[in-house]
Amino acid sequence: MQIAIALFPEFTSLDAMGPYQVLQHVPGADLRLCAAERGIVADDSGHLRVEVEHTFADVPRPDVLVVPGGTVTRRMMTPEDAVVTWIREAHPHTTWTTSVCTGSLLLGAAGLLDGLTATTHWSAYDALASTGATPTEQRVVVEGKVVTGAGVSAGIDMALTLVAEMCGPEVAMAIQLGIEYDPQPPFDAGSPSTAPPAIRDGLLARSI
Amino acid sequence: MQIAIALFPEFTSLDAMGPYQVLQHVPGADLRLCAAERGIVADDSGHLRVEVEHTFADVPRPDVLVVPGGTVTRRMMTPEDAVVTWIREAHPHTTWTTSVCTGSLLLGAAGLLDGLTATTHWSAYDALASTGATPTEQRVVVEGKVVTGAGVSAGIDMALTLVAEMCGPEVAMAIQLGIEYDPQPPFDAGSPSTAPPAIRDGLLARSI
Repeated sequence: MQIAIALFPEFTSLDAMGPYQVLQHVPGADLRLCAAERGIVADDSGHLRVEVEHTFADVPRPDVLVVPGGTVTRRMMTPEDAVVTWIREAHPHTTWTTSVCTGSLLLGAAGLLDGLTATTHWSAYDALASTGATPTEQRVVVEGKVVTGAGVSAGIDMALTLVAEMCGPEVAMAIQLGIEYDPQPPFDAGSPSTAPPAIRDGLLARSI
Repeated sequence: MQIAIALFPEFTSLDAMGPYQVLQHVPGADLRLCAAERGIVADDSGHLRVEVEHTFADVPRPDVLVVPGGTVTRRMMTPEDAVVTWIREAHPHTTWTTSVCTGSLLLGAAGLLDGLTATTHWSAYDALASTGATPTEQRVVVEGKVVTGAGVSAGIDMALTLVAEMCGPEVAMAIQLGIEYDPQPPFDAGSPSTAPPAIRDGLLARSI
């Protein structure tokens, strides 16, 4: 089972690294980090520099396709973009096509979400709706073979949900226990409906 | 505020990438991924290859020191190990010295945990106790300026706790909302006390 996680300049690190940590433990997985070109791809903070060994052309037919997000994705929503092109051409052949955070905007730009319910980072519902999708605040949305996750850290929940669909709950629970995923956030501020309004508005003003 | 996250061959990716995602948003943070030598450092699955630009010698006095884990850490628990040496020499000057997962074994090997309560991955309590620490199942333990987090995904909770200590709860909540950390694991299997015993025993048998 080939699992391809797309990277691109200014991707958000945890969007990719959450699913990466979960999916590497799928039995028989042939996991690949891939990008438009071989070489170094830096994340949106610039501090994480990943040496990518596989191009999109090297993995044209992954069984599982994973697309992370980043604020840059809004500028990548064109048919000519390398990630969007790869998604559009690979999707008819995948078993699962998935995204985390604003990675769903790239699925949308590839024409995959028209008429589907999908999710994204809470600050990007309008951009998601522009692709024909119906945005929802649900953390993970399974629509046929298209699975979308909410912002950044939701990639862990998305990937565990995906593993349960692919391999059954026992495998997903074993991976969950292996990564000790028993989350205990110190605050109840992780969604726009629970965070203090002043904090939410401050983040929106800074476009984080 | 200089924040240094140590990498080493066969580190567990999310151990480092959880805190990395959180701490990069600390106001005024000078975040550095560092290792014994410049160049590529691969994680324990071998698929994530990080180009490291800073050596331990470049960051001898970080304000915040973060040590991830990996099964390899058990073999690194010697006074001569490069990570252990860096921890031992930097710790007297840090504001916070922290670990995720079996990174705490390296804090212990550096002599930092003798007589302290600390945590680690649930499969490594015995190894942690061998350093003089008192292991606990708590997800995040703050003992003076030493903060330890439990296995892999606990680095997110550890880092948010640390940000709240350093910068106050508003900053921590803003980062939590920015990364939409409103976790909803599909199963209640993330700790050895909640996972089905057969799954726990199976993982221990495979030494994951």
